[in-house]
Amino acid sequence: MNELVVAGSLAFDAIETPFGKTDKIIGGASPYISLAASRLGVKPRLVSVVGNDFTPEFFDILHRNGVDTEGVKVDNNQKTMFWAGKYNKDMNERTTLKTELNCFETFNPTVPESYKNAKVLMLGNITPTIQSAIIKQFSKRPDLIVLDTMNFWMERTPKELEETISMVDVLTINDEEARQLSGEFVLLKAAKKILAKGLKYLIIKKGDNGALVFSADGNYFSAPALILDTVVDPTGCGDSFAGGFCGYVAAKGKTDFETIKAAVIAGSVMGSFCCEKFGTENLQNLTDQDIAERVKQFEKITSFKF
Amino acid sequence: MNELVVAGSLAFDAIETPFGKTDKIIGGASPYISLAASRLGVKPRLVSVVGNDFTPEFFDILHRNGVDTEGVKVDNNQKTMFWAGKYNKDMNERTTLKTELNCFETFNPTVPESYKNAKVLMLGNITPTIQSAIIKQFSKRPDLIVLDTMNFWMERTPKELEETISMVDVLTINDEEARQLSGEFVLLKAAKKILAKGLKYLIIKKGDNGALVFSADGNYFSAPALILDTVVDPTGCGDSFAGGFCGYVAAKGKTDFETIKAAVIAGSVMGSFCCEKFGTENLQNLTDQDIAERVKQFEKITSFKF
Repeated sequence: MNELVVAGSLAFDAIETPFGKTDKIIGGASPYISLAASRLGVKPRLVSVVGNDFTPEFFDILHRNGVDTEGVKVDNNQKTMFWAGKYNKDMNERTTLKTELNCFETFNPTVPESYKNAKVLMLGNITPTIQSAIIKQFSKRPDLIVLDTMNFWMERTPKELEETISMVDVLTINDEEARQLSGEFVLLKAAKKILAKGLKYLIIKKGDNGALVFSADGNYFSAPALILDTVVDPTGCGDSFAGGFCGYVAAKGKTDFETIKAAVIAGSVMGSFCCEKFGTENLQNLTDQDIAERVKQFEKITSFKF
Repeated sequence: MNELVVAGSLAFDAIETPFGKTDKIIGGASPYISLAASRLGVKPRLVSVVGNDFTPEFFDILHRNGVDTEGVKVDNNQKTMFWAGKYNKDMNERTTLKTELNCFETFNPTVPESYKNAKVLMLGNITPTIQSAIIKQFSKRPDLIVLDTMNFWMERTPKELEETISMVDVLTINDEEARQLSGEFVLLKAAKKILAKGLKYLIIKKGDNGALVFSADGNYFSAPALILDTVVDPTGCGDSFAGGFCGYVAAKGKTDFETIKAAVIAGSVMGSFCCEKFGTENLQNLTDQDIAERVKQFEKITSFKF
């Protein structure tokens, strides 16, 4: 299978939450995206960069979960990106303790030839110029290009971000970012203004309040958030959502609104699993049955008979 | 029909929003609750108090919508309660310009004999001791007692509120109030702690993010918020939600979880209609078809096929 290319950061994370703390574990956006997507029956092909400390056991996490790492450069002169963060008691706030970009600072991605007939391209949250440079390397445009970004780029490189947005089909941001990007407080107005930048779909992530997807032709869909017994570590939930979303679309090979709705549920399912354990641990061990049962939970908490 | 008794404030409101302003219109919680409930096929019986300025045309609004006002006292020595408020540009904040309690200050409710075999009792947001005094007047306990309250009473009269909560089946509050009442930040923990006060169901209203209902036996349901083209006046949306909820339950005559889920949708439908026009105007003119079409919209934005 060759449907999905994922580009994004690969890093080591050290995470502390009220439930415990980790040593350096595999992190950054792309492992969450790839591992979540891999659970939906696709073989994600990764574009990223790591340093000389990214030892074989970390590659093995990706490989044994079906992730192709041909597009992962190894920069032997530098170390892998590192992030350390700590969550507060209620896990609604987190403090970044350390960010070392290391090899990521000079990341100049190359998309391998074998990746270039991908149907879906998922661009994790990185510099907009790097995202657009990746798109330009595809001789044949993927059927669906999904872009994740954040407020940082809206403030720092708004022009470059606008150009990148104009090249993609789907944008995923949170509700505050949608307001910031559009200058509109009312979410419907914000969504219309952002869709008018040339998108087919806009996904607005609302954390504990679920997610919305708006289509350019005026439809929308509301996915709830599952209410979980235990949230152990919220790191990577948004990326797992993106991975579930694009993995589902790639596996189905369709981009109509019915598929997109189910893909948003797939994303919500993966986001919910992710935060139940530290890092990517839960994503690595999910079975088809785990996923099917959780999809049923989403059906159960939203279905009604009037 | 004699299934639903509604107790709550009756007032005049003067409302200003970016879409315009009103003179004194019928307001307070109970008209919103009653009119919303009346649209679902029940005849709400109202317990409240008005002053000497509550002229026949205002009673007529209630009567022609099937609301029984035998339990509405007329205090000829005072004026009707009055509230004036103004919403900001984005309608996410409102400023109270004036509150005159008038006849409501000495409100001492009497439930008429003809009301006392009601199946559902809805207590709008008023002083907890008045709410409990109303419950105590029912010789035969209603099948379902629904209580609305707010943070003001949690701070001002916590003991009286706790006593009132212990007498009811369903509590409706917003997410911040659920956290305040329970002392728990995580919503699931908050819900469990509040349900343990003896409730059958807890409804958490989340405004633009929909509503949740939790049952004492461990189920929950997530209702989305409809995304509306125009929000003209948010006043009374929460009360319209409560009215739709208890009107549906009273009309069905059942209190199982499947009925409660649909009732939360009925509440969401009524809340969405309410805010599209000033005051109770939209509630007064809804047809069965309007309601059926909006229920279909709720089905459409939540249904998916994985």
